[in-house]
Amino acid sequence: MESTNRYITIKTHINHGEPKESHFELKTAAFGLSVELGSNDVIVKNLYVSIDPYQINRMKSYSPSQKAINFAVGIALGEVIDAYGVGRVVASGNPKFEKDDLVAGLITWGEYSKIKDGNMLNKLDPMGFPLTYHVGILGFSGLTAYGGFFKVCKPTKGEKVFVSAAAGSVGNLVGQYAKLFGCYVVGCAGSKKKVELLKEQLGFDEAFNYKEEKDLKSTLKRLFPDGIDIYFDNVGGEMLKVAVSNMNTFGRVAVCGIISEYTDEKRAAPDMIDVVYKRITIRGFLATDYMNAHADFMSTTCDYLRTAKIKVLEDITPGVESIPSAFIGLFHGDNVGKKIVKIANE
Amino acid sequence: MESTNRYITIKTHINHGEPKESHFELKTAAFGLSVELGSNDVIVKNLYVSIDPYQINRMKSYSPSQKAINFAVGIALGEVIDAYGVGRVVASGNPKFEKDDLVAGLITWGEYSKIKDGNMLNKLDPMGFPLTYHVGILGFSGLTAYGGFFKVCKPTKGEKVFVSAAAGSVGNLVGQYAKLFGCYVVGCAGSKKKVELLKEQLGFDEAFNYKEEKDLKSTLKRLFPDGIDIYFDNVGGEMLKVAVSNMNTFGRVAVCGIISEYTDEKRAAPDMIDVVYKRITIRGFLATDYMNAHADFMSTTCDYLRTAKIKVLEDITPGVESIPSAFIGLFHGDNVGKKIVKIANE
Repeated sequence: MESTNRYITIKTHINHGEPKESHFELKTAAFGLSVELGSNDVIVKNLYVSIDPYQINRMKSYSPSQKAINFAVGIALGEVIDAYGVGRVVASGNPKFEKDDLVAGLITWGEYSKIKDGNMLNKLDPMGFPLTYHVGILGFSGLTAYGGFFKVCKPTKGEKVFVSAAAGSVGNLVGQYAKLFGCYVVGCAGSKKKVELLKEQLGFDEAFNYKEEKDLKSTLKRLFPDGIDIYFDNVGGEMLKVAVSNMNTFGRVAVCGIISEYTDEKRAAPDMIDVVYKRITIRGFLATDYMNAHADFMSTTCDYLRTAKIKVLEDITPGVESIPSAFIGLFHGDNVGKKIVKIANE
Repeated sequence: MESTNRYITIKTHINHGEPKESHFELKTAAFGLSVELGSNDVIVKNLYVSIDPYQINRMKSYSPSQKAINFAVGIALGEVIDAYGVGRVVASGNPKFEKDDLVAGLITWGEYSKIKDGNMLNKLDPMGFPLTYHVGILGFSGLTAYGGFFKVCKPTKGEKVFVSAAAGSVGNLVGQYAKLFGCYVVGCAGSKKKVELLKEQLGFDEAFNYKEEKDLKSTLKRLFPDGIDIYFDNVGGEMLKVAVSNMNTFGRVAVCGIISEYTDEKRAAPDMIDVVYKRITIRGFLATDYMNAHADFMSTTCDYLRTAKIKVLEDITPGVESIPSAFIGLFHGDNVGKKIVKIANE
């Protein structure tokens, strides 16, 4: 059975600056909806795909040596772009999957995905939750927040937590987990509306619009009179520097993302004298390192969802053709919460 | 009993640039060699004092808020400067010490120390070793190297270790511990003589003179074809940056000191994208955090000394008046190994 697949690809590498519409192309290609005999492949109709800032790092051109050390496999020009998402099996040569199964895993920024050997794909039991939850809060954004906060930051109750990009897909969950755990939580975001959301809807103790603060170091000093114990860093750059300067002894920085540096090579170095004397730990991490916390993450988060203790922030745009603008918008702070593109009706 | 005490002090704060002779003053003051009745104080005749780069951080002027967060208590102009060392008790009001006891602990850059309540002072059993060993390899330099390498870096056999300032008081020991533990070890230093010493006497696998390398990133790439697992950082700045860029996944940086930044505000920021994707941990530490490893440290190191498996690098200058030049020399790489000033004959 032959159909067509519309998918997004990059026309050029994006080595400097922000992504633009002109970097992307919506391609249409013939696509087989059945699997060859003896193949282990799985054909998936994509329903929802995750739009994440880290993809920009895969859109850069790397030297072979950089490729070897860089976890994020580069995206080839003109090729399909893999991304986390939820879909429905159309055809399967793999005994683990049957037609019409719901699946979650590494699908593509397109209408259909052909998943070699069913790798990085799992059957999905929605457990009564909307499918979009399985892209965001119950997917990698949630695991990133949970693993990063509990396993990397190793919080204790009452500690003072700062989260940047706090209205983003991961940041909002870190803040909520931290509040539910018993921490004092301050978030920063890039608009008044987001700041209100953090304080009024998500229960953050304080929040501020970093664009309106003249001296971020003083802002943090004011909002953390007793210092910062944990900084969950989604942005890097200047914010990392000022957070370190306001940090308490034995403070921990979990470096989740550094969106400010993905498109801009300006870096701001934290004061390493502070790092030594205050014995600060700065640790980069990826959610995949915390798969052993997945069961805990799921049971805790599902429980919070069922008891309405945690709020779900989703920002959903329809249509495969909206992927480039959804992605570009991440770098302008357009999204509130998890950015998802809905590809097809369930 | 009244005598005089000659001691070193600072005339001005040293907020920028390197320390100079003109910053220091040798003062002479009347000094009581007996303790008042009912006092818990201990009077110590200083024998050997430690000369360490971190003292520069105590010679800066801090704002009150900086003082509150900075472990290193600032040195007041004209006052005695405390420093680690070994001495002999002249008089004691403290039942823990008797006249003629050898002691190690926080004494002063002077001929005599009056130790309030005997704080930060311990009786010293030389265990057959020269007293200078108890200032360096069996003192805080040794504990810093041991705690930093084993507890902060958490090495496994066969890992690739890079040490900067590798001919310095701490660096040379880190390299030796790492070799004895079964790691591949590369050190950098600032002269040809030191590089030869590292390779020929201390058993480093490789060493280089950072002043002669045009492109440090390439140098590390050449000497670590399989990447760096552990970087023991004594210098900060550019070296930290290039080490991170050559680091393997789950690499660890123990930040012990950052001598390049003590006197120069130029910083070089590591690439945080590397930190995230390679899940690198950068951790500042102080030896005092690893007092619980002190017994292990002593038994391991004494054993290495008795079996001549570890070499002792000491650089000793005589006379209290030589303290400023000894200290200034640290910032020019004049010292080879542990810099100690001998104050008096044993």
